[in-house]
Amino acid sequence: MMHAPVNLDQTAAEIAALLGGRVEGDADLRLQALASPALAGPRDLVPVWTAAASAEVRNCPARCLLVGPDYPPAENGTTLVRVADAEAAIDTLARALGPPRDRPAAGVHPAAVVDPSAILGEGVAIGPFVSVGARARIGDRTALQPGVVVEADAVIGADCHLAPRVVVGFRCVLGDRVLLHAGVVIGADGFGFRRDAQGRHHKIPQVGNVILGDDVEIGANTTVDRARFDHTLVGRGTKLDNDVQVGHNVRLGEDVAIAGGVNLAGHCRLGDRVLMGGMAGCDNGVIVGDDAILGGFSRIKKDVPAGGFVAGIPAKPFEEFRKERANLTRLPALRERVAELERRLGQRDPAEDPS
Amino acid sequence: MMHAPVNLDQTAAEIAALLGGRVEGDADLRLQALASPALAGPRDLVPVWTAAASAEVRNCPARCLLVGPDYPPAENGTTLVRVADAEAAIDTLARALGPPRDRPAAGVHPAAVVDPSAILGEGVAIGPFVSVGARARIGDRTALQPGVVVEADAVIGADCHLAPRVVVGFRCVLGDRVLLHAGVVIGADGFGFRRDAQGRHHKIPQVGNVILGDDVEIGANTTVDRARFDHTLVGRGTKLDNDVQVGHNVRLGEDVAIAGGVNLAGHCRLGDRVLMGGMAGCDNGVIVGDDAILGGFSRIKKDVPAGGFVAGIPAKPFEEFRKERANLTRLPALRERVAELERRLGQRDPAEDPS
Amino acid sequence: MMHAPVNLDQTAAEIAALLGGRVEGDADLRLQALASPALAGPRDLVPVWTAAASAEVRNCPARCLLVGPDYPPAENGTTLVRVADAEAAIDTLARALGPPRDRPAAGVHPAAVVDPSAILGEGVAIGPFVSVGARARIGDRTALQPGVVVEADAVIGADCHLAPRVVVGFRCVLGDRVLLHAGVVIGADGFGFRRDAQGRHHKIPQVGNVILGDDVEIGANTTVDRARFDHTLVGRGTKLDNDVQVGHNVRLGEDVAIAGGVNLAGHCRLGDRVLMGGMAGCDNGVIVGDDAILGGFSRIKKDVPAGGFVAGIPAKPFEEFRKERANLTRLPALRERVAELERRLGQRDPAEDPS
Repeated sequence: MMHAPVNLDQTAAEIAALLGGRVEGDADLRLQALASPALAGPRDLVPVWTAAASAEVRNCPARCLLVGPDYPPAENGTTLVRVADAEAAIDTLARALGPPRDRPAAGVHPAAVVDPSAILGEGVAIGPFVSVGARARIGDRTALQPGVVVEADAVIGADCHLAPRVVVGFRCVLGDRVLLHAGVVIGADGFGFRRDAQGRHHKIPQVGNVILGDDVEIGANTTVDRARFDHTLVGRGTKLDNDVQVGHNVRLGEDVAIAGGVNLAGHCRLGDRVLMGGMAGCDNGVIVGDDAILGGFSRIKKDVPAGGFVAGIPAKPFEEFRKERANLTRLPALRERVAELERRLGQRDPAEDPS
Repeated sequence: MMHAPVNLDQTAAEIAALLGGRVEGDADLRLQALASPALAGPRDLVPVWTAAASAEVRNCPARCLLVGPDYPPAENGTTLVRVADAEAAIDTLARALGPPRDRPAAGVHPAAVVDPSAILGEGVAIGPFVSVGARARIGDRTALQPGVVVEADAVIGADCHLAPRVVVGFRCVLGDRVLLHAGVVIGADGFGFRRDAQGRHHKIPQVGNVILGDDVEIGANTTVDRARFDHTLVGRGTKLDNDVQVGHNVRLGEDVAIAGGVNLAGHCRLGDRVLMGGMAGCDNGVIVGDDAILGGFSRIKKDVPAGGFVAGIPAKPFEEFRKERANLTRLPALRERVAELERRLGQRDPAEDPS
Repeated sequence: MMHAPVNLDQTAAEIAALLGGRVEGDADLRLQALASPALAGPRDLVPVWTAAASAEVRNCPARCLLVGPDYPPAENGTTLVRVADAEAAIDTLARALGPPRDRPAAGVHPAAVVDPSAILGEGVAIGPFVSVGARARIGDRTALQPGVVVEADAVIGADCHLAPRVVVGFRCVLGDRVLLHAGVVIGADGFGFRRDAQGRHHKIPQVGNVILGDDVEIGANTTVDRARFDHTLVGRGTKLDNDVQVGHNVRLGEDVAIAGGVNLAGHCRLGDRVLMGGMAGCDNGVIVGDDAILGGFSRIKKDVPAGGFVAGIPAKPFEEFRKERANLTRLPALRERVAELERRLGQRDPAEDPS
């Protein structure tokens, strides 16, 4: 296996200097890459910042660990790079020495097609096979990776990054610093049909748009549908994982986080800072208050108040959900108790047989 | 926020004329866009066609509402555009004044690659970075948006619209007026392997195709796999939402509607007009009769008769499912009743203590 | 309907010769396509290799069946092609006479963009609108279908096939004979954020990569995220269906099989030969031992031992899960038994009323 992507190629002393830490052990030890205990080789630097990592590190061949203030002194010739915050140090190394995100050169690649009426900001970077439609506007320094499609009249802010094959539909609007991962589809039609007496589905026109606030990040192959006639909204700072579906006319607040595989049916509304676990779903039109937590694998059918914590299928307040689960687990015991009562009553005079 | 996409830019009187309705109030009021109560500005036209919208409209700054026959007379200087059917009027405005779907110019974009043996109908519109394989046939007036891939021997009907980056695999067949949203994949291999005694998986060739009937619509990033050797079928008028997976050899009837996140395992069959809620799934080979309803978040493991309504994990007839849920909710009460019986029997002579 | 894709166009005798079988009936019968009973026409060859197919075949107009040794002699003028293994014969016919997978001509299509620093093996086939980044390496005979994006420093083995619009992110590594279906995204960022006291999410850099072993196959629109700083791993021979999400730092063993719609949260680990049913999910960090089976529609929250079989939400050992389900189903009976006990005790002296 080739070495891991954060290419250190420096001594323990140099890494410690970069991180504002100090070396305990062999300061001249030359380090190769940043690696977790289970995957590290002898020359890798292994960060230890969780209890699990501490346990795994015992069988790890690496000779140098990146540790925080509380980690015990080195043993067996292991070298330590000790820093104030081992987890933050990982990010410092990742930013300084990790591979940068792919990005086209500034300008328009000759194999891109940009409509003459589109307006491009300064330093915009457009890769090959990108299509930018009529009157679309792309903000300063925004990068469009290969195969991105921006349809007519779309507006994309500054410092955005659209990974390969992202689609931004006509009229949709993105704020600044929006990061869309590969395969994201913004602005497909909402799922709206009118059913006639024969059971045939007649399309309800979907001509609204999607508006994503600043600092939104959306995971690979996630889709956000356009509204029926006005806006599907994703608030500033909201983060969606991969494979999420956001239906038409949904409104997500600011700083919401939604894990993978979630399905938000049309017209539902989530307040600010809502957290939603993976594989959960909201039914059509559900309203969820600020700061609510929606458990993974839950189906939210009813509104959830601000600060609420719900789970289950259908979702209930967590304490209720927990008790219901517990009761279910104790059902065999309950059955046994009933059988015992029946045995006693079957003896006709329980008063004489208190066993 | 820029105004919503249905750009009215007309007076209340002009809108009323367009809709065959009449104005109650200021006929000269100039209107900007169609907007729902929660998102409207003072110059927007707000349709009120549900009870929820009626409630929301009280705090809405818009000065003009689009209402049906039963809506009460205007108050507080609000202007009404009164029509026979407020919801239908939304669609009329969306069609007349909403932004049109993006569509390449008729002809083949110079940055498309169409195999010389492919056959294109009249008025076909092929955008940049579209690839059309050998012997593929594209029907009259069909549009292929940027990045669409049509593989060899595929057949696409007339008046279809394939949104950006749709893939239609070799040999697959689409009827007329098929609408595929961005990222749809028609004709990837079915998931078929033979497992040997060592647990290794040996691929079963997947060389069949997918046939989509007329008027099928499929949501963004949904996938429909090709059959093992004959056909995966999606019947006329059937509508699939985003993020649905249709396995190999599945057969869907006509006018079926399937909501987001559904998973149909291989070989399952759904009759005509089946409705399936979001995040549900059918196990391999399940057969569902015409007009059945499959609840959201359900796992259908057994066949469902025509007209059946099932829900739950695993799915059961709805009435049974509902009772089971209710029993679960009443478990704490049942436990309490058993405890009370135990208390009474513990007193040796329940006849003397009827409390 | 046009005929099914396995174009036989041979007599029963010729097909029998190809399969090493023999004809019982009309050896000169000319056959059109391979078709299942429900979809076959009179001139199709219908394989009968399951009990279900045997039942369906009674109403099937086809005049020729492909059968195994145990199938009864022909009736009513039906012709049989009898072989040692009817199911294996399907695959033989599919390979010999089915349509081949689409594949670009060897070489680089003029409408592809390959960075001059990329290294291409012998016989590499690169289709139109493919983008290959700096220093990427593509192994011998590997095919990249239209619209594939390979980012910088990615390494792809020999004899791989990347279907249309696959994305392989920077630094990611694929073994030999890897088959990725349309829309697959390898190497999008993991979903990692640090939440501050105000509830804002701060991105944790995701600079690791994804490594796919030899003979991995991944279904349409499935995503595998890059690790935070080292590797997300998918072992040799592992097969993922469509619409699966694999989070950052996940490690999948060899010969794992995962059905559609599954969600693997970050850092979870599955051993060799694990089987996972559709629509299931593993929580963050869960560890699953070799040869375990994870039921469909299950949520795996706790570690599963080697050889374990779990199901349910949350997942439990299967036997426990099964009993819990059964207890739930018997709840109405339990309630009735408690009511009966109450009735008896309500009569004050149950000893005198044994009814």
